[in-house]
Amino acid sequence: MIIVMKPGASEDQVQHVVDLVRDFGLKEHVIHGTDRTVVACIGDKRHVDKSAIENASMVERVVPVLAPYKMASREVRGERTQIRVGPRQFPLGGRQVGIIAGPCSIESREQILLLADVAQKAGCIGLRGGAFKPRTSPYAFQGLREEGLKLLAEARARTGLAVFTEVMSIEQIPLVSELCDVLQIGARNMHNYALLEAVGKADKPVLLKRGLSATLEEFLLAAEYIINAGNEQVILCERGIRTFEDYVRNTLPLAVVPELNDKTHLPVVVDPSHGTGHAHLVPAMCRAAVAAGADGIILECHNDPEHASSDGAQSITPATLYELMPVLKRIAQAIDRDV
Amino acid sequence: MIIVMKPGASEDQVQHVVDLVRDFGLKEHVIHGTDRTVVACIGDKRHVDKSAIENASMVERVVPVLAPYKMASREVRGERTQIRVGPRQFPLGGRQVGIIAGPCSIESREQILLLADVAQKAGCIGLRGGAFKPRTSPYAFQGLREEGLKLLAEARARTGLAVFTEVMSIEQIPLVSELCDVLQIGARNMHNYALLEAVGKADKPVLLKRGLSATLEEFLLAAEYIINAGNEQVILCERGIRTFEDYVRNTLPLAVVPELNDKTHLPVVVDPSHGTGHAHLVPAMCRAAVAAGADGIILECHNDPEHASSDGAQSITPATLYELMPVLKRIAQAIDRDV
Amino acid sequence: MIIVMKPGASEDQVQHVVDLVRDFGLKEHVIHGTDRTVVACIGDKRHVDKSAIENASMVERVVPVLAPYKMASREVRGERTQIRVGPRQFPLGGRQVGIIAGPCSIESREQILLLADVAQKAGCIGLRGGAFKPRTSPYAFQGLREEGLKLLAEARARTGLAVFTEVMSIEQIPLVSELCDVLQIGARNMHNYALLEAVGKADKPVLLKRGLSATLEEFLLAAEYIINAGNEQVILCERGIRTFEDYVRNTLPLAVVPELNDKTHLPVVVDPSHGTGHAHLVPAMCRAAVAAGADGIILECHNDPEHASSDGAQSITPATLYELMPVLKRIAQAIDRDV
Amino acid sequence: MIIVMKPGASEDQVQHVVDLVRDFGLKEHVIHGTDRTVVACIGDKRHVDKSAIENASMVERVVPVLAPYKMASREVRGERTQIRVGPRQFPLGGRQVGIIAGPCSIESREQILLLADVAQKAGCIGLRGGAFKPRTSPYAFQGLREEGLKLLAEARARTGLAVFTEVMSIEQIPLVSELCDVLQIGARNMHNYALLEAVGKADKPVLLKRGLSATLEEFLLAAEYIINAGNEQVILCERGIRTFEDYVRNTLPLAVVPELNDKTHLPVVVDPSHGTGHAHLVPAMCRAAVAAGADGIILECHNDPEHASSDGAQSITPATLYELMPVLKRIAQAIDRDV
Repeated sequence: MIIVMKPGASEDQVQHVVDLVRDFGLKEHVIHGTDRTVVACIGDKRHVDKSAIENASMVERVVPVLAPYKMASREVRGERTQIRVGPRQFPLGGRQVGIIAGPCSIESREQILLLADVAQKAGCIGLRGGAFKPRTSPYAFQGLREEGLKLLAEARARTGLAVFTEVMSIEQIPLVSELCDVLQIGARNMHNYALLEAVGKADKPVLLKRGLSATLEEFLLAAEYIINAGNEQVILCERGIRTFEDYVRNTLPLAVVPELNDKTHLPVVVDPSHGTGHAHLVPAMCRAAVAAGADGIILECHNDPEHASSDGAQSITPATLYELMPVLKRIAQAIDRDV
Repeated sequence: MIIVMKPGASEDQVQHVVDLVRDFGLKEHVIHGTDRTVVACIGDKRHVDKSAIENASMVERVVPVLAPYKMASREVRGERTQIRVGPRQFPLGGRQVGIIAGPCSIESREQILLLADVAQKAGCIGLRGGAFKPRTSPYAFQGLREEGLKLLAEARARTGLAVFTEVMSIEQIPLVSELCDVLQIGARNMHNYALLEAVGKADKPVLLKRGLSATLEEFLLAAEYIINAGNEQVILCERGIRTFEDYVRNTLPLAVVPELNDKTHLPVVVDPSHGTGHAHLVPAMCRAAVAAGADGIILECHNDPEHASSDGAQSITPATLYELMPVLKRIAQAIDRDV
Repeated sequence: MIIVMKPGASEDQVQHVVDLVRDFGLKEHVIHGTDRTVVACIGDKRHVDKSAIENASMVERVVPVLAPYKMASREVRGERTQIRVGPRQFPLGGRQVGIIAGPCSIESREQILLLADVAQKAGCIGLRGGAFKPRTSPYAFQGLREEGLKLLAEARARTGLAVFTEVMSIEQIPLVSELCDVLQIGARNMHNYALLEAVGKADKPVLLKRGLSATLEEFLLAAEYIINAGNEQVILCERGIRTFEDYVRNTLPLAVVPELNDKTHLPVVVDPSHGTGHAHLVPAMCRAAVAAGADGIILECHNDPEHASSDGAQSITPATLYELMPVLKRIAQAIDRDV
Repeated sequence: MIIVMKPGASEDQVQHVVDLVRDFGLKEHVIHGTDRTVVACIGDKRHVDKSAIENASMVERVVPVLAPYKMASREVRGERTQIRVGPRQFPLGGRQVGIIAGPCSIESREQILLLADVAQKAGCIGLRGGAFKPRTSPYAFQGLREEGLKLLAEARARTGLAVFTEVMSIEQIPLVSELCDVLQIGARNMHNYALLEAVGKADKPVLLKRGLSATLEEFLLAAEYIINAGNEQVILCERGIRTFEDYVRNTLPLAVVPELNDKTHLPVVVDPSHGTGHAHLVPAMCRAAVAAGADGIILECHNDPEHASSDGAQSITPATLYELMPVLKRIAQAIDRDV
């Protein structure tokens, strides 16, 4: 931690800051520059809230030096983590890029089995489908719930695909863990710490979506909550952030992929469906995500998007998926990976 | 709902859209403009997801006409709602502006009683204090929990102040409802629909904080979740949004105050502590919020901010609070209200 | 400047950074922390681009300590600058808050004289009006140009109001300087450095609008360009920033007012018309701006907003202005100022 | 244009809106829905500012139907425009993707000739280099100016590369047009309409960078300014937008590439150097941009980034460029294009 004093800070004011620093159990190092005095602190501790020092007289700002997350960082673990998902134990985070497709909501047995067959035939490694739906409006379709989970399990048994589904609250975890392969934490729940801790105690991999306005640091701290509670199988998922852009539902910031690869050992998956909100933009963003180095893609696919009970506007059709897969394969090969 | 077709849409393509519109139980009205055809739909229903129509061939975009919330809107209720809080039943949403002050976290009996006395002496109507703390980092202080709630209740008995505290999960609701006056939903939980429905069944007023990147519509839909579940006592709280600005923790968009007064009948409270993140900006933003027409202010105040266990940087001291209150009173009077 | 090394940086890598630091004519101070090494640099120079050091091997980031502006900062000048504007030499930046009103565009002699009379009668100190209009669309009304300036000068002679108008290019400066009192730099030109330097050589005060997505530092650096070229009479104007909010044209971040008062000695004016984009939000934001400590307000007023040739949606009527002024006066008095 | 009335609007209020619509020379179509009345207008004109209607009593909002740009849109021109650049007339917008590399600033003859040789050897089609530098700080290096242009011309003669350089003001246009191949308009000047019109009269292609917070519509309107003034050779360049993200200098929203391909016939180039701000993110974003369908890449390359006079942090080295080019070629081939 570095504390920058305002110009004109007196010796007493600097000493007061030094005292506060020592209160925190740190050692100080005072540097008198030409314009300003700076107090560098040694023995930085991640778990102490030091912003309070900003309140001391004549302190201009406090600059943390350590990232506040630890177990998610490359400092702790140099090599990339591979997370095996589904009946076939596909290794997310390895050389091969995994594509996961499926509807936003599970709507019926026919629908989910049909789309599972599509995903399998296209060469996907996973099937996504929402059973519990977080909806912005209380009047919107809320999902098939338990029945949906059972249909997912049936689709899994039939195709061997890994099934991904969202858990919205703690009491859903046991059933979802029993019937599905990967517990998804939605963007709106990235800051739901009680839920993060609870999936941290589950024995299934967790796909953690970045919050709409979460910084990278907050995203990694959410992963840290899960790992800290005991579950190291965290898959990070970028699904777009909220900006002023109005031709998309969200802005998909793909630079996050190489940055996360630099900062963390966890696999990184991209969701170009929520990341754009419009089906016509999804194929290009899938291609870009693979080229940027994503370990996986999770996308929405629906056999009849015009009548989908949710997210129809961003769901691609099976025909588009079939066309897209060989292109993604060629792009992966261009960077020495595979789909 | 208005559906705008792309230029060059054929008769068949327009007819396909008309068929979809009828599938939704709506009546269409086709308008052929000079450049484009537009399909206006009559009998608009709030609870149908119509974005799927966007996926139909040659549709450019779908423009909703109705706001998706209803019970929170002025259309349903013309006059302002007043919500009575605390032992003295202070009416938030009336002529008088209510100031609520207190620490970010309850740290000890001495601290919370001291700050309750400060709040009372300063002329506040409420005391805030966190017992359960949502923290970005798993390593940060998580609150005194049940013990904190009991201390709040003690402070309430001693001073007659209304006590406000956050509920982070469903199982906390009964105890918080028993011991406190207002259930606070934090910004990070604004999209936690299970929690919204649960406080919607409680019999205490709810202070609902706007999410960091929530649109106004999403904010009002969150209120709608609570009202729809049976609890009409919702107080809206603006606490700052995430933008590119870097001299503040959040950007406080005060225009939300007159806009909410225009769109909804619910009381509006402003939190300038989270809304700026820095104690030196809080007094000016309190003044501005009252002048903009806020029904209340909720702010962080700490007797020793430099040693606060959380949010020290944005907590003002009792001395600053004492100085600020008469100024807020004069500003309120300048717009024919009072503090 | 503080250089933070990545964990595991070798002695050679640190030495390489030290060499770079010395290349810049700075003195280094190496601090070995528990997890990381930090290189603090003494003799920090504002005009050297040091971001390049970030490219050195194993550097994590470079944290500047000095603000890059100097002459706009309070470090250089402790007391507030007052800038006298118009025939009556009203001191912006003093105890009294100055209100400037007028149409977006000057449309006709009748219109501008009528609105000048309104502004004077309401107690404003200035008249605004665009003669040269920067328009997003090449097809939109571009202003009355020279003729407009002459009408402004006539309105000034008639009322004694200070006249404010935008300069969009260097060649307009002489004529505008001759006929008007304050040269306005629009938000879209805040980064037009050639224009900033040119008004820096003019002998009229400059009202500098913050760019739509400018940080505070960039805003003050734009002021620095003008001051550095010789013109110390810079009035800063906040006019709203671009965010995800969709109920407003721009988000008006009023915390900028106390922050600028803390960081700079220059007067600060707020434009709630562009800052919201909607007439129904303007009065509340005028009140809030005065309460937050603004030295002035510049707003759009039109006698027939429905037929205004630009910005009708955000222009208040004369009737609204007459009602608003005494309220602003009372709010100013509540904080020991006056209108 | 669609005008949505508030619920409860009277017949007279609707009639008043109808009168305004007719004042604009449009024909109205009134639709009485179950909750609201909507006035659809036929004969929509792009060049009329209709936002003023929003000010009429009981109008809720005005929804434009036509995009305000025309000549840049696919409605006017179905096939993609190819723009030929440089001595070898490389067709930007065709099947082949063009890579343009070079330093941020031209620093010396040695430097620019060396980097031109690097670009040529790597297989680039263009050389970029700033002679006139827009700098946020008045104290920063401002470029070699005329001398720089001559060095660019020399590099061009030597290598046959197309040379790209920024024009910052109108008077620079003749000389830049004479010595260089493509006039670049920087992001900070995207709204400088006088400059847009002036390059609209030049006979060289223009590379137009998107403003930091420009919407897509504003970006295309800036292109429209240039085309409308007579110059149809406009290359659009995405260089990142300003958001809350703090691990990058800008957020690079690659979905803009397919969206622009859908909306406009102009070629689209991506700048991953400014688009990320950090050299370590540039290769991945180059790969992603090509995969997303960009027609070109413009990037910063420097032989000694640690000592670059500007933008060192985001410049890749020649070694990185040599490694990157064959990868980009393979990715282009994966989508049936080439580099």
